[in-house]
Amino acid sequence: MTQRIPNLQVALDHSGLQGAVKAAVAVGQEVDVIEAGTVCLLQVGSQLVEVLRSLFPQKIIVADTKCADAGGTVAKNNALRGADWMTCIYCATIPTMEAALKAIKEVRGQAGEIQIELYGDWTFEQAQLWLDAGISQAIYHQSRDALLAGETWGQKDLDKVKRLIEMGFRVSVTGGLDVDTLKLFQGLDVFTFIAGRGITEAENPAAAARAFKDEIRRIWG
Amino acid sequence: MTQRIPNLQVALDHSGLQGAVKAAVAVGQEVDVIEAGTVCLLQVGSQLVEVLRSLFPQKIIVADTKCADAGGTVAKNNALRGADWMTCIYCATIPTMEAALKAIKEVRGQAGEIQIELYGDWTFEQAQLWLDAGISQAIYHQSRDALLAGETWGQKDLDKVKRLIEMGFRVSVTGGLDVDTLKLFQGLDVFTFIAGRGITEAENPAAAARAFKDEIRRIWG
Repeated sequence: MTQRIPNLQVALDHSGLQGAVKAAVAVGQEVDVIEAGTVCLLQVGSQLVEVLRSLFPQKIIVADTKCADAGGTVAKNNALRGADWMTCIYCATIPTMEAALKAIKEVRGQAGEIQIELYGDWTFEQAQLWLDAGISQAIYHQSRDALLAGETWGQKDLDKVKRLIEMGFRVSVTGGLDVDTLKLFQGLDVFTFIAGRGITEAENPAAAARAFKDEIRRIWG
Repeated sequence: MTQRIPNLQVALDHSGLQGAVKAAVAVGQEVDVIEAGTVCLLQVGSQLVEVLRSLFPQKIIVADTKCADAGGTVAKNNALRGADWMTCIYCATIPTMEAALKAIKEVRGQAGEIQIELYGDWTFEQAQLWLDAGISQAIYHQSRDALLAGETWGQKDLDKVKRLIEMGFRVSVTGGLDVDTLKLFQGLDVFTFIAGRGITEAENPAAAARAFKDEIRRIWG
């Protein structure tokens, strides 16, 4: 059995364009996916997506809009600026997700994808509806409760990730990840690891990204 | 019994700054609340809030971020640009909502408020948790299912709005509203009616806003 090597995604969660672009320039070539973070999109708009697309024509660019409504318009706007993927919040309605998927594919072709952001109280019944709607990417966030309880990634989290993968999702994971926590996921076919400040705030962001990639290759290579 | 007269809020759902500002200039003085819409915020960032604040220093400005995470950062960013109110999506966690409320009040004082955007499958048990967290504004969206079924506002919708008001929420309503549908809400202490294109796309937007206000005063005055 050949297992795919998980992607590394850097999240640009800055409040200003300059900080986000500086971080992107520092680590963009080291990662597989570059994320225009929600906080930054709400501050500077989709020009961030456009800048990232122009700097990294070969990388996957994701607009983390956490779209909850007007999926068609938001997806079209971001796709036209160069986003390959866009996120919808899990509690968006199915018609909103479907409209987003249709719009991003119209602009980006098959490269265009929608990812469902999982927070809080989603159910596997909902997840099946997303699959049925043609959406096969999900982003699993470490639960805040676990974080507050001092856990890193608990067995409950890992079991949910596993079940989503078994259902047919390509699953990204995020929240409190560092190089040392990657091995918790050993044996799971994680699609993408997402790190933000763990990379961008490191003393040497490019070296931090490479350390993530090295550990991913060591475990899944 | 003296009943408060509901506010009128205009939603600026444009994809560009120019269209949103032009619409705001046309109708801003006629309404009580001016909304920087989600689509526009994601396109141009919180400069939209700043422009609206500078044009309308006496009006309530709401940033419709539909915030799902990083509530403290997003609220601070928008409050610093001049937003009085900010929206969180109903499926955000309570800590996210609390962080948003704390941050907006730190910048805007008592004027700073968080509104919960209701879509889909929220419950009254959740709603009580929002009240317990100090959040007393909710925005009720007409259900898409009702819309698809050709209904305007069904009795189910009205009953939910009534129950939210009885729980202690100030409730805004939105979705498919025009001057003729306002009377459906007669007898309900609606806090704010939100209209977007019904005002901004009218041949004479200011006259359309005044027609809304006149009908609101006729029913609730």
